[in-house]
Amino acid sequence: MSILVVGSMAFDSVETPAGKREKALGGSANYFSISASYYTDVKLVAVVGQDFPQEHIQFLSSRGIDTSGLQVVNGDTFHWAGHYMNDLNEAETTATYLNVFADFDPTLPESYQEVNTVFLANIDPELQLKVLEQVKNPKLVAMDSMNFWIHSKKDALLNVLKKVNMVFVNDKEAELLSGEKNVVRAAKKIQQMGPSTVVIKRGEYGALLFSGDDMAFTPAMPLEDVIDPTGAGDTFAGGFLGLADREGEDFKGQVDGDLIRRCLITGTTMSSYVVQGFSFDKTKELNANLILNRWSAIKALSDVKDDLRISG
Amino acid sequence: MSILVVGSMAFDSVETPAGKREKALGGSANYFSISASYYTDVKLVAVVGQDFPQEHIQFLSSRGIDTSGLQVVNGDTFHWAGHYMNDLNEAETTATYLNVFADFDPTLPESYQEVNTVFLANIDPELQLKVLEQVKNPKLVAMDSMNFWIHSKKDALLNVLKKVNMVFVNDKEAELLSGEKNVVRAAKKIQQMGPSTVVIKRGEYGALLFSGDDMAFTPAMPLEDVIDPTGAGDTFAGGFLGLADREGEDFKGQVDGDLIRRCLITGTTMSSYVVQGFSFDKTKELNANLILNRWSAIKALSDVKDDLRISG
Repeated sequence: MSILVVGSMAFDSVETPAGKREKALGGSANYFSISASYYTDVKLVAVVGQDFPQEHIQFLSSRGIDTSGLQVVNGDTFHWAGHYMNDLNEAETTATYLNVFADFDPTLPESYQEVNTVFLANIDPELQLKVLEQVKNPKLVAMDSMNFWIHSKKDALLNVLKKVNMVFVNDKEAELLSGEKNVVRAAKKIQQMGPSTVVIKRGEYGALLFSGDDMAFTPAMPLEDVIDPTGAGDTFAGGFLGLADREGEDFKGQVDGDLIRRCLITGTTMSSYVVQGFSFDKTKELNANLILNRWSAIKALSDVKDDLRISG
Repeated sequence: MSILVVGSMAFDSVETPAGKREKALGGSANYFSISASYYTDVKLVAVVGQDFPQEHIQFLSSRGIDTSGLQVVNGDTFHWAGHYMNDLNEAETTATYLNVFADFDPTLPESYQEVNTVFLANIDPELQLKVLEQVKNPKLVAMDSMNFWIHSKKDALLNVLKKVNMVFVNDKEAELLSGEKNVVRAAKKIQQMGPSTVVIKRGEYGALLFSGDDMAFTPAMPLEDVIDPTGAGDTFAGGFLGLADREGEDFKGQVDGDLIRRCLITGTTMSSYVVQGFSFDKTKELNANLILNRWSAIKALSDVKDDLRISG
């Protein structure tokens, strides 16, 4: 089993009510890979400039992540700047410097072409397509996106949607994509666009999943201190898909409802750590025990043994 | 086992994106009683004018609700008008006609004084106190309130809070009461004001409970058609406390975590029906089978059998 991710490696300049960081390590493929690496083998496709710290690439390798698809080219690494001031559930972008990302032409090493699972992280949908065309016969293809692409490249995005089994969106993206304010109707409309499974990320309110006719939900871990939500969505997808890749059968066929619910908790567990620090501060401290404890705490929030007795 | 509720019986004029209703039946004690009546014996304390329909009082009686504490006096019944236009999670009040409520002096029939559980629904905290003083030795006292009383009668409200075991608030009320935007910190501050158990109602996002150091959560039932959220909070409290009254031991001592989680699902089940119609339209159609099916569907959203396996 292994999972291929294409997305961004970035420097993030972030301001939140808890403070600010200039050019901290970030990027969707980066957050995703590290999270998924706790569950399965990860193959990374991305581009960085020569300013990207070698020690971080070593950190990825130390987590067993295959970086042979990581291009290092002349120029500066992609740089995103944004802040979360009034609402920790949504970032406001203040600047985007594409830099080396502007000419990114993803080419997969041969060893990447036979992966089980593909995650098309939030990048230009035309690049997502280009990567997907190079993979031979994946069992599960999932994607993420954002309002920027829904506005600017909707046709290409709809084209990718047709080819995936699963999409991760937040509440607002679901509304934007479907034209429906109601979350159930929005998810059903998105299912009709292609993916049989739609995961709606609702920030501190948890994540709601629609898979065929099944619905599943996990609450977010209630936390006293949320430092920086950057990367939470990709970290969530990393935990979710990492476990799905390791334990799942073909997602195009019958989906195991219990596995899906464990995937939701696993994604939530991983993202609950990343938000407790800037960048990878907290993720770097993770180990199996911490993960298991948090996982059990999230499961326990809604774990009911007995049933309701009622007559009449 | 029995539960005493004091609150309002009302006419509600409501407008939602789904339509509008003039002077439909409503009121916190009304919604609460009917919901709780599926689980335990309910004794109602409230006041109505002579314009209140006799057939509705008969409906309450047909549900086994004790209405001997319902005062029928000269004048018009309390009348609330409001709308939910942009956000189904929050009502905007456009008019409040206190009418007979202005001179309401709740006096409990003797048969009401030895109840097990008390629910002080959203009314003037001075009236809540007056009722509580007349109850002899309740095992569980819970209260609701709203922003209006937090602003206008905070001292009286804090006084009631000191005397209750449990409080139901929504997100915004929790913030207003505690001065904390973060929900965990808000709940902890409210616990310090008196109640060991704080239930934070988050509308379509579910309900989060803090009881001592335990946290529990239930998602709301994802619904395609929410017609009118009026009464959802009181209906939720009715299901929650109805089951707690029937199955709970002393809430001041050790709280049964599984029961608390079943109470959360039960409250959510009941409120998921009330919002699917105006007034009591949907509640009137309820029966044990419908309740059990919805209950199981909500439980299934987050029901995970297996655990996470992870090494390292």
